[in-house]
Amino acid sequence: MLLAAAVPDGFEGRVADLGAGAGAAGFAVLSRCRKAVALLVEREADMASFARATLALPENIAMGNRASVIETDVTLRGKARMAAGLGDNCCDFAIMNPPYNDAVDRSSPDALRRAAHVMTDGLFEDWVRTATAIVRPRGGLAIIARPGSIGDMLAAIEGRFGSAELMPIHPRPGKAAIRIVLRAWRGQRGALSIGPPLTLHGETGNAFTPEADAAVNGERALYPQ
Amino acid sequence: MLLAAAVPDGFEGRVADLGAGAGAAGFAVLSRCRKAVALLVEREADMASFARATLALPENIAMGNRASVIETDVTLRGKARMAAGLGDNCCDFAIMNPPYNDAVDRSSPDALRRAAHVMTDGLFEDWVRTATAIVRPRGGLAIIARPGSIGDMLAAIEGRFGSAELMPIHPRPGKAAIRIVLRAWRGQRGALSIGPPLTLHGETGNAFTPEADAAVNGERALYPQ
Repeated sequence: MLLAAAVPDGFEGRVADLGAGAGAAGFAVLSRCRKAVALLVEREADMASFARATLALPENIAMGNRASVIETDVTLRGKARMAAGLGDNCCDFAIMNPPYNDAVDRSSPDALRRAAHVMTDGLFEDWVRTATAIVRPRGGLAIIARPGSIGDMLAAIEGRFGSAELMPIHPRPGKAAIRIVLRAWRGQRGALSIGPPLTLHGETGNAFTPEADAAVNGERALYPQ
Repeated sequence: MLLAAAVPDGFEGRVADLGAGAGAAGFAVLSRCRKAVALLVEREADMASFARATLALPENIAMGNRASVIETDVTLRGKARMAAGLGDNCCDFAIMNPPYNDAVDRSSPDALRRAAHVMTDGLFEDWVRTATAIVRPRGGLAIIARPGSIGDMLAAIEGRFGSAELMPIHPRPGKAAIRIVLRAWRGQRGALSIGPPLTLHGETGNAFTPEADAAVNGERALYPQ
């Protein structure tokens, strides 16, 4: 839900949730931004079905009218992408949580790790290429990923999205970041900045810090503006 | 002095201070690490003279015996670099504070900014190439720079230095980082991590925080290990 919180408060346009899974991040944007609409883009049929089922629930009728599911591969290009419903400049914001490093998680022999690294490079490039095509000029992009992906993320947005803001997400004070959220703007050229980090928990215990709780629960946007 | 603090406590080898200026960072390493020796590499004759004058002071005899000044361009390659005294694998650690973005500071029309950006790309690449040549396998590299240079820095170390640790340096709580310190290890392949940030001052006032004071004044290394 930190990814959803990267969309500014008061956002009124169309957000694409790329690799939406069952749609949680997109739904979180719709919940906080009452005038927003969402495209939930998901390749896996099971996940797309869950998203559609959620939208069809009677209690979600209002939200359902503001969301649609596109069951397709985020990495489609050109005419195939447009035919799937992802037209050029069709969105004001894209959010993504690429599933890039599962292979590394499952197994870590060097050969597999290298293979996964190659996959990672291509995956960020492919996903950000689609975001570049579908987000209008000056529209936004937010990515949540692991810190080790910074290089690949920055290479992928180079010349496409700029004025990037990087937010490290730390589990506890004094501990290394477990995630980063990168937000950037289509066609902007400003230098990358690193804002204050978000720390999820205190020194001990499972309770969220007040800042993390507000962002995770949709009470506020992750960035001040 | 934050750059010097990136060298681990107890470091005993040879550190190259690339673009040493008058040598302050290299001297700071020698002061904290009593068995270290330093190569101060500086292109500008005036600055190199200041460094030599400091080493020649009677009160600095002990330190002077552990440091030498090499007046040459960090970006020399191959035989020219070796002839200047920067041999392959001659060092255990390199530290650098490249003067890459002065042009942007002085003037910001778009054309100049673009030119400066091109210079930036080349500068990190050139400086890290030399560090790659002179630092032995498993030796260290530390760079201090502005947050906007992360992409260039990571591109420059790719395939050369790994297991990088990125530390954002914030002026005050809640404010964007003004510098980053990146430390990485020659030939290592681990993913980049983002440690806890260092905050220089409190909400108000000019006093350093205890953590910043200890690092700036050479009482402790910047990273826990």
